[in-house]
Amino acid sequence: MNLNPAEGFRDFLPDEYLRREYLIQKIQDIFKKYGYRPIDTPIVERKEILEGKSGEETEKLIFRILKRGDKLKRALKSSSEFPDNLSDLALRYDLTVPLARFYAKNRNNLPKIFKRYHIAPVWRAERSQVGRYREFYQCDVDVIGSKSPFIEVEVILLISEILSDLGFKDFKIRINDRRLLKALLHAVKIPTKLHDKVLITIDKLDKIGFDGIIDELKKRGLDEGLIENLMDAIENLNKEKNPISAINVAEELLVGYVNVQDIPYDSDLEEEDPELLEVDGDGKEIFANLKKIVGLVNEIGLKDGKIEFDPFLVRGMAYYTGPIFEVSYPGVPFSIAGGGRFDKLIGALTGNEIPACGFSIGFERILYLMNKNNMFPEEIGKVDIFMPLFSEAYFLDVLKLASYFRMHELRVEIYPEAIKINKQMKIANKKGIPFVVFLGEDEIKNNEINLKNMETGEVKIFKKRARAIQWMLDNLKRFQL
Amino acid sequence: MNLNPAEGFRDFLPDEYLRREYLIQKIQDIFKKYGYRPIDTPIVERKEILEGKSGEETEKLIFRILKRGDKLKRALKSSSEFPDNLSDLALRYDLTVPLARFYAKNRNNLPKIFKRYHIAPVWRAERSQVGRYREFYQCDVDVIGSKSPFIEVEVILLISEILSDLGFKDFKIRINDRRLLKALLHAVKIPTKLHDKVLITIDKLDKIGFDGIIDELKKRGLDEGLIENLMDAIENLNKEKNPISAINVAEELLVGYVNVQDIPYDSDLEEEDPELLEVDGDGKEIFANLKKIVGLVNEIGLKDGKIEFDPFLVRGMAYYTGPIFEVSYPGVPFSIAGGGRFDKLIGALTGNEIPACGFSIGFERILYLMNKNNMFPEEIGKVDIFMPLFSEAYFLDVLKLASYFRMHELRVEIYPEAIKINKQMKIANKKGIPFVVFLGEDEIKNNEINLKNMETGEVKIFKKRARAIQWMLDNLKRFQL
Repeated sequence: MNLNPAEGFRDFLPDEYLRREYLIQKIQDIFKKYGYRPIDTPIVERKEILEGKSGEETEKLIFRILKRGDKLKRALKSSSEFPDNLSDLALRYDLTVPLARFYAKNRNNLPKIFKRYHIAPVWRAERSQVGRYREFYQCDVDVIGSKSPFIEVEVILLISEILSDLGFKDFKIRINDRRLLKALLHAVKIPTKLHDKVLITIDKLDKIGFDGIIDELKKRGLDEGLIENLMDAIENLNKEKNPISAINVAEELLVGYVNVQDIPYDSDLEEEDPELLEVDGDGKEIFANLKKIVGLVNEIGLKDGKIEFDPFLVRGMAYYTGPIFEVSYPGVPFSIAGGGRFDKLIGALTGNEIPACGFSIGFERILYLMNKNNMFPEEIGKVDIFMPLFSEAYFLDVLKLASYFRMHELRVEIYPEAIKINKQMKIANKKGIPFVVFLGEDEIKNNEINLKNMETGEVKIFKKRARAIQWMLDNLKRFQL
Repeated sequence: MNLNPAEGFRDFLPDEYLRREYLIQKIQDIFKKYGYRPIDTPIVERKEILEGKSGEETEKLIFRILKRGDKLKRALKSSSEFPDNLSDLALRYDLTVPLARFYAKNRNNLPKIFKRYHIAPVWRAERSQVGRYREFYQCDVDVIGSKSPFIEVEVILLISEILSDLGFKDFKIRINDRRLLKALLHAVKIPTKLHDKVLITIDKLDKIGFDGIIDELKKRGLDEGLIENLMDAIENLNKEKNPISAINVAEELLVGYVNVQDIPYDSDLEEEDPELLEVDGDGKEIFANLKKIVGLVNEIGLKDGKIEFDPFLVRGMAYYTGPIFEVSYPGVPFSIAGGGRFDKLIGALTGNEIPACGFSIGFERILYLMNKNNMFPEEIGKVDIFMPLFSEAYFLDVLKLASYFRMHELRVEIYPEAIKINKQMKIANKKGIPFVVFLGEDEIKNNEINLKNMETGEVKIFKKRARAIQWMLDNLKRFQL
């Protein structure tokens, strides 16, 4: 029988599990310091909740749950509707769509401005590949119910503090406004119908460079003149490094284009009209807003990273409506966190517009980097004391002493079988347990504690239990998760 | 659109979520003190792993995952195999079967005696009813790889310490050995084929009493003479209250019957032979083992509960092979924890026998009782400080002061909109946040901190930030999860 976890799924052994727990703990400690509160939702939602919210690509990857009992029997009778009618529930593929459903359902019991975080697994039926799993954690923090740019400032500082606290240095928080990308495409006269495709290409700027972008746009059949316009604009926008100055350059180039009419496209092949975001006026407030956010973040200052304006930042999700951000880390081609404002999604289920803005930490990527770069403390979750068993007759004495240690918050493993003592010592060694307490005939008779520091090899005999504890605490390196 | 969670599933709002988190934290702190280590497994397993392991009733309730892509297309072509061929994966319905798969797969990377805990959700497609959910947490602690009765002693003490720590008093840990039930049925000459049915009835002794048992056995068609034998034995076994004496009574009655031959049944209707547990000799060692476990537990002593011998304790799961236990709590008709030794299940996937013994805490039941009886501290996860915003112009000052408080491990919520101050105060009040820091024009000009204790109404002005923090810490009641 195949004993592996199902394809694309993972078992977590204790050491790895404890590192995941440590990471969750560190992250949520900071969420809590910022006054954010946790929620959880079911791992499944009704199919109709998950469908139509998050782009085709993601929805192709939904795990669906087979109907049960009579419902299944009825479904099996109408094969013309296969496979749509065979499932009623599906595993969540992100935490944002469930948040929209959760908020719509529970809003009367939530504060008007609701600051929540959610750290939990999601599932996508992706083809297995290195580093891609079908079950992985997401870690989202979102504020629902306020349009204030102070929210953007707060979540940026929050994410930055988390990264610092975990030991990340020199990260870059790149910020853009989703509406500016549309304005850029309008400014260089790209037909509205092609926007989505061109945006997907621009999103790869970091990975494939200028020439890669040009090649891909050619392949997508974009007119060469249009490509030239676009590349000129990109070059122009790329000059300024100071974020406020860079925003000013963008303002000069793009203001007036944010609410431009649709530019017609000469084919009717594609049916759906891409929805244009409504912007009042010429869009000056978009730039003012970005400058406010960047200005405040810089006034407070980021300990280990910096904020940059990146006019080509796209973000995959179609639901963003305003500022968007992504965090880059030196030496890795992927972002380690990302987010933005999405003022339409949450209200989609209630019918009224409900502003929202949030950040998602790339939990598995952060974990991967921390493992790779030895950023976890070594002692996470370690047991402090190993107590071998010399004879079954001494078990009660061992247990009593262990209880005393445990009462003093020390972690004690008792070996339950009186096998040869050198075998038991090998086990303690392999487990990396720092102290061994020997309780044999002599120690019991003399009422003594015989304690070995496994790292230094030092052995001490104590008459007083409290002294023994003190000696251990003085010599313990540990991160007691 | 239906905004409720899927039927039988639950949303957790922050307060409820935090209570669940608190419970998990408390439980795992004690697991860790005993040297147990956490693991996790995927929420799904291949169907063939989950099937055939855990009794028909449970397996009827499995949520199955629809196949995807080409696999699904192929499956839909052979309707003769519907619905079996439509799914490949299924949600785990407990943590024990996944443990068996996990251990078989990973045993080379695990210690020979492996002490693990696992706190995680499982799923069963049960009909919704009050207090029964389709998604619920299980909390299991198991030791794999040792036959030592010291394991039983350890897990009993562990569970008892957890219950004490959570505030449970007067719980009863009932212990039996699964083999004694068979011996009892043999001793009173009930045919082997009827054992399972009679055991299901006896399991209800606490709920339906002696007369209930007699009625039900009559309905099941058991011979009246046999019922009388059985009831006499039950009465006899029920006399002694001291657990060691009670075990002695059982020994007198049952020794010699533990390895009795199958008693024939006069119908061939039922095909499968119930598997008899092999016992060497007359079973004296079963009683010796029970007396050892009970004796040691009593020598150490339970802080808030006691251990009792209950010769009628059954436990639902067929996989137990030796001692079994269940924890009762006054005033509730259900057990709050249960477990036992299961020496056959873990090895089923590897082919060799691997002993195991564990305890499962009724997570949702414990949570229900703790909520009902106000056993949670009130302050779990509370925010410490609310900072209203008098004017958008002051945001940077508010943020700087908040950063200072956060640096000192205080939890601060900043209100992001400069709405009327009395509205903001109402919000702080509703959230139950104990301190409000006012930062208006005067405070900024005078470099002062204006602090209100929301519980007492007291207001203080501080020149030094450290003093303000000290005053808050002195007055904070909190359980900072």
